[in-house]
Amino acid sequence: MTASVFDTVESNVRGYCRVWPTVFATASGSWLRDEAGREYLDFFAGAGALNYGHSNPVFKQALVDYILNDGIIHSLDMATTAKRGLLETLRDLVFVPRGLDYKVQFPGPTGANAVEAALKLARKITGRQTVLNFTNAFHGMSLGALSVTGNAAKRAAAGVPLPYTNPMPYDGFLGGEDELRWMRRALDDTSSGLDRPAAVIVETVQGEGGINLARVEWLRELAELCAARDILLIVDDVQMGCGRTGPFFSFEIAGITPDIVAMSKSIGGYGLPMALVLFKAEHDQWAPGEHNGTFRGNNPAFVTARVALEQYWSDDVLERAVLAKGERLAAGLAEIAAGCPGTTTRGRGLIHGLVFADPSHAGKVSQAAFELGLLVETSGSTNQVVKLMPPLTLSADELDHGLGLIGTAVAAVCG
Amino acid sequence: MTASVFDTVESNVRGYCRVWPTVFATASGSWLRDEAGREYLDFFAGAGALNYGHSNPVFKQALVDYILNDGIIHSLDMATTAKRGLLETLRDLVFVPRGLDYKVQFPGPTGANAVEAALKLARKITGRQTVLNFTNAFHGMSLGALSVTGNAAKRAAAGVPLPYTNPMPYDGFLGGEDELRWMRRALDDTSSGLDRPAAVIVETVQGEGGINLARVEWLRELAELCAARDILLIVDDVQMGCGRTGPFFSFEIAGITPDIVAMSKSIGGYGLPMALVLFKAEHDQWAPGEHNGTFRGNNPAFVTARVALEQYWSDDVLERAVLAKGERLAAGLAEIAAGCPGTTTRGRGLIHGLVFADPSHAGKVSQAAFELGLLVETSGSTNQVVKLMPPLTLSADELDHGLGLIGTAVAAVCG
Amino acid sequence: MTASVFDTVESNVRGYCRVWPTVFATASGSWLRDEAGREYLDFFAGAGALNYGHSNPVFKQALVDYILNDGIIHSLDMATTAKRGLLETLRDLVFVPRGLDYKVQFPGPTGANAVEAALKLARKITGRQTVLNFTNAFHGMSLGALSVTGNAAKRAAAGVPLPYTNPMPYDGFLGGEDELRWMRRALDDTSSGLDRPAAVIVETVQGEGGINLARVEWLRELAELCAARDILLIVDDVQMGCGRTGPFFSFEIAGITPDIVAMSKSIGGYGLPMALVLFKAEHDQWAPGEHNGTFRGNNPAFVTARVALEQYWSDDVLERAVLAKGERLAAGLAEIAAGCPGTTTRGRGLIHGLVFADPSHAGKVSQAAFELGLLVETSGSTNQVVKLMPPLTLSADELDHGLGLIGTAVAAVCG
Amino acid sequence: MTASVFDTVESNVRGYCRVWPTVFATASGSWLRDEAGREYLDFFAGAGALNYGHSNPVFKQALVDYILNDGIIHSLDMATTAKRGLLETLRDLVFVPRGLDYKVQFPGPTGANAVEAALKLARKITGRQTVLNFTNAFHGMSLGALSVTGNAAKRAAAGVPLPYTNPMPYDGFLGGEDELRWMRRALDDTSSGLDRPAAVIVETVQGEGGINLARVEWLRELAELCAARDILLIVDDVQMGCGRTGPFFSFEIAGITPDIVAMSKSIGGYGLPMALVLFKAEHDQWAPGEHNGTFRGNNPAFVTARVALEQYWSDDVLERAVLAKGERLAAGLAEIAAGCPGTTTRGRGLIHGLVFADPSHAGKVSQAAFELGLLVETSGSTNQVVKLMPPLTLSADELDHGLGLIGTAVAAVCG
Repeated sequence: MTASVFDTVESNVRGYCRVWPTVFATASGSWLRDEAGREYLDFFAGAGALNYGHSNPVFKQALVDYILNDGIIHSLDMATTAKRGLLETLRDLVFVPRGLDYKVQFPGPTGANAVEAALKLARKITGRQTVLNFTNAFHGMSLGALSVTGNAAKRAAAGVPLPYTNPMPYDGFLGGEDELRWMRRALDDTSSGLDRPAAVIVETVQGEGGINLARVEWLRELAELCAARDILLIVDDVQMGCGRTGPFFSFEIAGITPDIVAMSKSIGGYGLPMALVLFKAEHDQWAPGEHNGTFRGNNPAFVTARVALEQYWSDDVLERAVLAKGERLAAGLAEIAAGCPGTTTRGRGLIHGLVFADPSHAGKVSQAAFELGLLVETSGSTNQVVKLMPPLTLSADELDHGLGLIGTAVAAVCG
Repeated sequence: MTASVFDTVESNVRGYCRVWPTVFATASGSWLRDEAGREYLDFFAGAGALNYGHSNPVFKQALVDYILNDGIIHSLDMATTAKRGLLETLRDLVFVPRGLDYKVQFPGPTGANAVEAALKLARKITGRQTVLNFTNAFHGMSLGALSVTGNAAKRAAAGVPLPYTNPMPYDGFLGGEDELRWMRRALDDTSSGLDRPAAVIVETVQGEGGINLARVEWLRELAELCAARDILLIVDDVQMGCGRTGPFFSFEIAGITPDIVAMSKSIGGYGLPMALVLFKAEHDQWAPGEHNGTFRGNNPAFVTARVALEQYWSDDVLERAVLAKGERLAAGLAEIAAGCPGTTTRGRGLIHGLVFADPSHAGKVSQAAFELGLLVETSGSTNQVVKLMPPLTLSADELDHGLGLIGTAVAAVCG
Repeated sequence: MTASVFDTVESNVRGYCRVWPTVFATASGSWLRDEAGREYLDFFAGAGALNYGHSNPVFKQALVDYILNDGIIHSLDMATTAKRGLLETLRDLVFVPRGLDYKVQFPGPTGANAVEAALKLARKITGRQTVLNFTNAFHGMSLGALSVTGNAAKRAAAGVPLPYTNPMPYDGFLGGEDELRWMRRALDDTSSGLDRPAAVIVETVQGEGGINLARVEWLRELAELCAARDILLIVDDVQMGCGRTGPFFSFEIAGITPDIVAMSKSIGGYGLPMALVLFKAEHDQWAPGEHNGTFRGNNPAFVTARVALEQYWSDDVLERAVLAKGERLAAGLAEIAAGCPGTTTRGRGLIHGLVFADPSHAGKVSQAAFELGLLVETSGSTNQVVKLMPPLTLSADELDHGLGLIGTAVAAVCG
Repeated sequence: MTASVFDTVESNVRGYCRVWPTVFATASGSWLRDEAGREYLDFFAGAGALNYGHSNPVFKQALVDYILNDGIIHSLDMATTAKRGLLETLRDLVFVPRGLDYKVQFPGPTGANAVEAALKLARKITGRQTVLNFTNAFHGMSLGALSVTGNAAKRAAAGVPLPYTNPMPYDGFLGGEDELRWMRRALDDTSSGLDRPAAVIVETVQGEGGINLARVEWLRELAELCAARDILLIVDDVQMGCGRTGPFFSFEIAGITPDIVAMSKSIGGYGLPMALVLFKAEHDQWAPGEHNGTFRGNNPAFVTARVALEQYWSDDVLERAVLAKGERLAAGLAEIAAGCPGTTTRGRGLIHGLVFADPSHAGKVSQAAFELGLLVETSGSTNQVVKLMPPLTLSADELDHGLGLIGTAVAAVCG
């Protein structure tokens, strides 16, 4: 690109357009096209917001019909037919089958806003202030969400201290030797200096943090540890929910029931801004209007969110497909990693990472992949991980094609 | 409504659906319809997000076409053709005609997020931490935005202190006798205990705060006071921008150029989530990715935002219409107020308030209006103000019809 | 001084030794002597810790006897005969005659510690966090005390933000036009953004702040304002108590009864470290040991404190003498000020200030006075005030002698 | 005691007088006497402020002479002959023999104040805000010192959050398996969420925390960990310094040189309030007066502090005696513990703890000891430890006598 309006008018804060230097125009299924007509296979999926692919035709028609029929677009928290449809579908397809007695809050249409609301609610319920977060966590950029996020550069950008939180070692952070021991001991010694917390906030898989996986036993132990001490457990399922790891909620494999769940990204189905906070009915201590937000009633997203639940979560077809494709992805990556000494892989469902011994390799692989027509990004505290997160709906051929491109990119960098 | 899914599944936090107890289904122009087919004239306009009315046909077609053509829906901050179109239009129709050398940041699609980004940037630029805010201010519900918001109940819901800010009296708060004197003196005495601030954040008209108007001279003095002391001036134009008070930016009447401007609500045109942070090019000290957000690239809103600028801000037709209708509204309200002793009115452009001596009257008027088929909400610290904020595009007949309903409602309550 | 151990071993943080560059050896009454035998008349009085002069023979004998008899020196908060003597004397000579139902806390032997304890207690009693302080206030250097202190350089030395406090304009700060209006309005508007405070902390005369006097009516209005809103009133009488302004407590002239009073400096009588927190019995909500400190039982100071009360506060002789000498001091200063255009004076009892139009004059006068054999320091946010605070026990001749030296110094600087 | 002035006038906050319900009158050497003439052997030593015993005749004479000669009592930070004597003695007897290039700050006469100054200085030097503290730490009750103290009840008494600090596991807290691993990993991962700290503050033995001993290797590793990352190491030697563990500084056995050392308690020699902050000369970045305090120049304590150094720290007689008596104390306690199943002992020099399996036993032993004429207190997060801290100067007979009383008390409780 020569000096474009992006360079001259958009702020330096822009990021992805530097990694993928082209101008995108259209997208469908697992593919994006730039204005020159070049196609890119998407192993990025809108950072998790496009689990069902681009311009999914099922949603598209419902969305266009809703708009053409003058359906309510913007409603704050007024009752609308679109919201009713979503609430009923959530209840019938998500809560009832899983035995969840959850209430639903619409907190403003971003994951950060869902996290902000979750933190507020936990503090309100308990009357305590401290929230425990984990190393390498990512929960968003607004001041509350940032206070439980790990990245030092992003924290520094707040320009103020981020108090009332305390980081704890995530599963594996200390080499796997009982990372919860410190939390448990600190909570149980009244002179530890750790103020009694309102809540713990956790991702079951840390996407931005480098595809770090919490083991099932660790999640269970964390849930028990919290329950035994009257500390609320908040799961941030913004990126790992909606089937990314297989089941609808990423925490289902551990058989735990969080007190509060933050949802966003793919919950809207079509990539439209939407977020939810779910919590046990007993925790619904909000007063009317205590948390609000102008775009908390983004009805077009309610429509596509409902259709997404109906289409993909009435049965277990998608879940099984994700797990099957995930195994194929894992196997393919293992093979690729084997060809590049020191490289390891990890993942669950359709979120996987290629971890490089030399952190700079990850960025080079991402760059090489882009040139080959594949979008993959990096993550981790030193950007040492190539993060593979395709639409859940990609075909077997697309998966293989993507693996082939990754293999080529890795070979070029590692060779 | 009998016990509905809203009662059983949605959180207690819901608010507007209690004030307006019906289920809305469709909307167009200045009218909403509930599922029973009843129509409501809209003097609320999505709390300022629907300045151009509901389902505006100009935007609707562009939006549907974009969707049907598989335009990019979700792009984070990748470059897209839709974003380019918006940036060029902002530059050509908004910045250049007004002599503004502004950069544009896409901070996540809510006003709160725009405010969060603005506060971060101001702190980063100055290396200072304190931000001065004003009595009765409203800037949003995330922790940073809430820290500069005045409402005690909403502040308390944070569950933690909201530090690094300091409230100052807004124009008129002390009866109009030089409300800036305290700020000026405190800033100029190095032993005042007021830490040197990074920025001042202000609304030119406080909508949630009760339709409090800052006078032109006060805004100018505030801007000079900041400039002379190297303190950044942030205008939150989330609700008052996009022509609500007449001109595109609400601060234009004062001839000032804020360092940073937060925009949201009607900037997206069609009621879709979108937000912008605008700032002087010299202030663009962001590092890439330092502030981000999954839905910062909501391309459908970029499309309708662009069309809105083209349609309404290529000339001064809308601005003049707003001012003219505003005068008509003001006159009508003055007449109504005259019939209810102790009631006063205030406003600018198409944002006006009816202020009742007995605060409970405002809520009763709002309730009576709903029953008559008119949506108006209340605001102010004791909800003492009926807030009138119709779409800017309403017709003269609609305006008169609305005034008639308000008059009837006031008479019923006040009589 | 050539390079001495003060230069080579003591930290740069030392201050007074730079202003008064000599090595002091002994002191008695109103006079200090340096090791070269040079004498200095003391119009500084240990920054208020030596109201009864140096080495006051009444206290000296009691102190030496106590030490020689192996009286308990250090007792934390064990019961001792010395403490009992002090408590009984406080009760009989201070509380009972003034109708005060106060409890006594020994918080550690510094004014800052008394302020820390007062702030804790107020927050504990009310369950609120914010404390309102005043412009130009000085309450100490530990983190809590510093958070209610005004001086920007001293605040900056904390290296962290100083939250949970909010500065308010002191009497006269805005030119005398109802400085309490802002506090009152902000407290009474629930959307002001000022969080409901636990307490207000105030000095009746701001010594470090530049000898700023709160008027009796203002103090009364402040007390009423607090009482009507269930906000605790803390008077920091560390420097202005013990007769400095005439009566034992500086707030007596206003006829108010603070909820909490911080005392230190001259309360120990002989310049020995000691501090007290006094509060209404109903506020004694401390749990045992909730605030402590190793040196809170400095028994030698309890002995001299008791003797000081017996000697000086069994009748009103000292109080009347202070007021009389204060008038003489005021008259003398007025005359001196008259000879130096733009110079003004202010004060109460035996604390007075000479305020210079050119702030640098104050430091020069202090320097000239030192060379003439008189110790006076400067205060105020630009060090624009020469602060005159002799021992309350100085003789009329000493007062006149001091006034003469000040006159000479002012003439030298101003001429 | 019948209802005394302590009950009616002193605040509920008083503590020790409840544990030891008598009124003390005089004290000398290792003994206190109450007003009824009953004698108590002191295994408490003013919580560490009376290392050299009560009314030590060497100091007493020097102190009385100084007072009788009208020596300067109170000097803030003016230069005085008494301060010069102390600075020279510190230099010659403490710094030079140990090769320490330290500067000396007089921060106000309490340990908390020394800690406050140390934290400020570390933040100023580094420009960072976070300070790491340890589980079960005790550093004082003012807001800054409290923020690095572990005890939950004392922290809660602040009434506000205590931000800008982060607790870390102390040696042994996690069972001895590399407690520094968490700190090291969190510091070295830029996405850990632990903000880069200014300093670490540590006690080499935690007295209030329950006589927890940091091993020499752990202290060395901590020092190296800090040095390698440009983090300042602050040792709080308020209770463990001045020979309590044998050498003058408690950290000498580890061969480390802290960046900053806080001293108080026994530094004044005679139980008089005094405190010091020592730091490497390169760290002396204070501006004049940036930290101050009215009683920072408590000259009587300077005199006794100097004499204490001359008397006890010109040679290694005291140090060797402490170690020898410490061994005797340890052996005696081991024997006592052996008679009470589940009881363990730990200690260093003349600070030892008897740790009971049933925490309530410790308080009962303390109570029984008091009745037998021995003062010992409890410590630890559940008050499970009887803390033995006699004057360093006690005789062998007194040591044996005390051991005998403890044995009797333990037998009575445990039997």
